[in-house]
Amino acid sequence: MLITENNMQKVLYNLFVKYKFTSEKAHLLANVFTESTLAGISSHGINRVPLFIGYIEKGIIRIDSEAEQVASFGSIERWDGNLGPGIVNATKCTNRAIELAKQHGMGMVALRNTNHWMRGGTYGLQAANANCISILFTNTKPNMPPWGGKDSRIGNNPFVVSIPRKKGHVVLDMAISQFSFGKINDYRLKGEKLPYHGGWDNNNELSNDPDKILSKERGLPIGYWKGSALSIVLDMLATLLSAGNSTAKISANDLETGISQVYICIYPEVFTDEGLQQKLIEEIIDYTHNVESINPGDQVYYPGERSSQTRAKHLKEGVAVNESIWKKIILLSEK
Amino acid sequence: MLITENNMQKVLYNLFVKYKFTSEKAHLLANVFTESTLAGISSHGINRVPLFIGYIEKGIIRIDSEAEQVASFGSIERWDGNLGPGIVNATKCTNRAIELAKQHGMGMVALRNTNHWMRGGTYGLQAANANCISILFTNTKPNMPPWGGKDSRIGNNPFVVSIPRKKGHVVLDMAISQFSFGKINDYRLKGEKLPYHGGWDNNNELSNDPDKILSKERGLPIGYWKGSALSIVLDMLATLLSAGNSTAKISANDLETGISQVYICIYPEVFTDEGLQQKLIEEIIDYTHNVESINPGDQVYYPGERSSQTRAKHLKEGVAVNESIWKKIILLSEK
Repeated sequence: MLITENNMQKVLYNLFVKYKFTSEKAHLLANVFTESTLAGISSHGINRVPLFIGYIEKGIIRIDSEAEQVASFGSIERWDGNLGPGIVNATKCTNRAIELAKQHGMGMVALRNTNHWMRGGTYGLQAANANCISILFTNTKPNMPPWGGKDSRIGNNPFVVSIPRKKGHVVLDMAISQFSFGKINDYRLKGEKLPYHGGWDNNNELSNDPDKILSKERGLPIGYWKGSALSIVLDMLATLLSAGNSTAKISANDLETGISQVYICIYPEVFTDEGLQQKLIEEIIDYTHNVESINPGDQVYYPGERSSQTRAKHLKEGVAVNESIWKKIILLSEK
Repeated sequence: MLITENNMQKVLYNLFVKYKFTSEKAHLLANVFTESTLAGISSHGINRVPLFIGYIEKGIIRIDSEAEQVASFGSIERWDGNLGPGIVNATKCTNRAIELAKQHGMGMVALRNTNHWMRGGTYGLQAANANCISILFTNTKPNMPPWGGKDSRIGNNPFVVSIPRKKGHVVLDMAISQFSFGKINDYRLKGEKLPYHGGWDNNNELSNDPDKILSKERGLPIGYWKGSALSIVLDMLATLLSAGNSTAKISANDLETGISQVYICIYPEVFTDEGLQQKLIEEIIDYTHNVESINPGDQVYYPGERSSQTRAKHLKEGVAVNESIWKKIILLSEK
C-alpha cells in the first residue's frame, strides 16, 4: 500500500506520543523513521517501528533518558546515552559534534550506553545540512566471524562519511558486512541467490545461498580479511573513546543494547570558501560519473545519489509499505 | 640473500646521503624503508628504493622541499608538501597531528602536494608510539573502476587506523583494493590464481586470473560497490580538506605525484587512564582471538599482529632481499 509522507509522519507522531514520548521527541522520531523510509531504507525505517516499540515495552530503551556529557577536553567529549532512544541520542551527539567543529575546526563526541541509531546516514545528512563533514560509526552485537574464525565475534559496525554539497549531499552509509541479513532475507523471499558471497554455510564454506547463510548467522565482511580488521578497529575506537561496551560485552545480552558510537565532525569552511569546496567536489563527481559503464545504459552513482533520488520519488508518489507492518503500527497506536 | 637490519640501514643511509639528502633525512628515510622491509612489506620497503631514486632523478620528488603549514584553525591545519619526499612529509605531519591531539584532544593535518608515503602503517605506529590513536589516509592515481564503470577512475587510497597498546600496537593498514597489483603479480609469478576476485578481465568480467587482470590494470574495490564508494569519499575528504589534487587531477600525470593526505590523531589519555584503555583493548583482542578457527591449527590475528611477528623474526635472522634489487641499490650508491 502507498503511504504519503504526511500520513506516515502523523501516524508515527501519534504512536510515539501514545508511548509517552514528549512532543519534541515524538516529532523527531516520526521524522527520522519517515525520512529513512522515503530514502528507501525501510528496514531501518517503517519496518523497524514495531521492534522499536517492543524494545520500549521491554524497558531496553528508556524513553525518558537522554545522553549527557561525562567528560570533556578541548575538541573532544565523552557522553553517556543512559540507554535512551538511539535516534534521540544520536541527533543530540551529532549536534554537539557540529558545535565543537565550528568552534575548533573539528570535534568529536564518543557516546556509550546508547541504542540502535537506525539509519546512520540520518546523522551524516544532519551534519552536511550544517555544512560539516562527518565521520560516524557504531559498534553492534557480533554478527560476522573474524577472518579465519568459526563463530560470529565481530559486528557489522555501520560506518558513515558525509560531505556537504550544494547539488545533493554526498553520504556513504555502509555496514562492514557485504550484505545485511535483511537483504539476504529479501533474496531468500525472492528465491534468488546473492550475486556474491554473503556469509558462511554449515560446512564453513563461503556461500551465496540465502537459506544456507541464514541457518546460522555468520555474515561476510567486505573485503574478507580487510573488513574483518576494519570491524575490529572500529569497535576498539568506539569502546576506548567512550569507555563503553565493546561487541564482546554487547554479546552478553540477548537483545542488542548499550552500544558505543563515535561522531566526528569537521567544518571545512574555516579553510576553504564554499565556492572552491563545491568545485573540488564536482571535479571528483564529474570524473567518476563520466566513466563509460560496463553494462550499456547503466549509470555510475556517487554515494548517496540513489537514496536522494528515491526520496524525491517517494515524496511525490508516496511510499510502498508492507501492509502487515502498517496494520501492526495502526494497531499499536490504537491499543 | 639475507640482509641484517644494521646493514640495510647503513647501505640505505649512504645511498640517501649520496643523493644529497641531509644526514637527518637520510637517516629517517633509511629507517622507514628498512622498518617496512622488516615488517614484511618489501613492496614499499627495499623493493621500492630504486623507483624512489628514479623519482628523485626525474625531479618528481624534490629532496630539499619540506611540508609547511598554509592554514590553521583550532585543532585543524592545512599543510603543503611542496612535492618533497612523501616519507619526510608524512613523518612531519603525523608529528604535528600528535601535537595538536595532545593540545586539543584531537588534531588533524590535511596535506597536499606530497609524494607516496610508502607504507602507511609507518605513521600509524608513529602515532601509537606517542600514545595516540590515528586515522590516516591518502589518495592515489586511479587504479580501480568506480562500481559499474569500465575505466579506472578511483584510487586504492590506503587507509590506516592505529591504536596504542602495551603488548604491541594495533595497526590496520589497508588499501581499498582487494589485492594490490604487486600481490597480483606475485600470484602470476607463482603461476597461481588469486583466492578471490581481484579485478576485471578484458571481457569486463570479474576475474581471479592474474594474467587477465594485469593486462589492463582495473582492480576490484573491497566489498565491490561499498569499497568503490569508500574510495570516492576518502578522495573527497583528502582533496577538500587540503584543497589539493583529487585522483582526477593526479591522473593527468603519467607518474603519481602531488597527492593529498589526511592525518587525524586522538589522544585518549585525556579521558581514560592507561590501565582502563589497555583493559578495554585486551577484552576485544581476547574475544576475537579466542574464537575457534575454521581450519584447525590456523590462528585469528588482530590487525598488525603478523607484521610485528614478522619484524621480530627478521630482526633476529635478517631479511631475505631479492638479489637483483640489492645489487641495483649497491650500484646506485657506488655510481
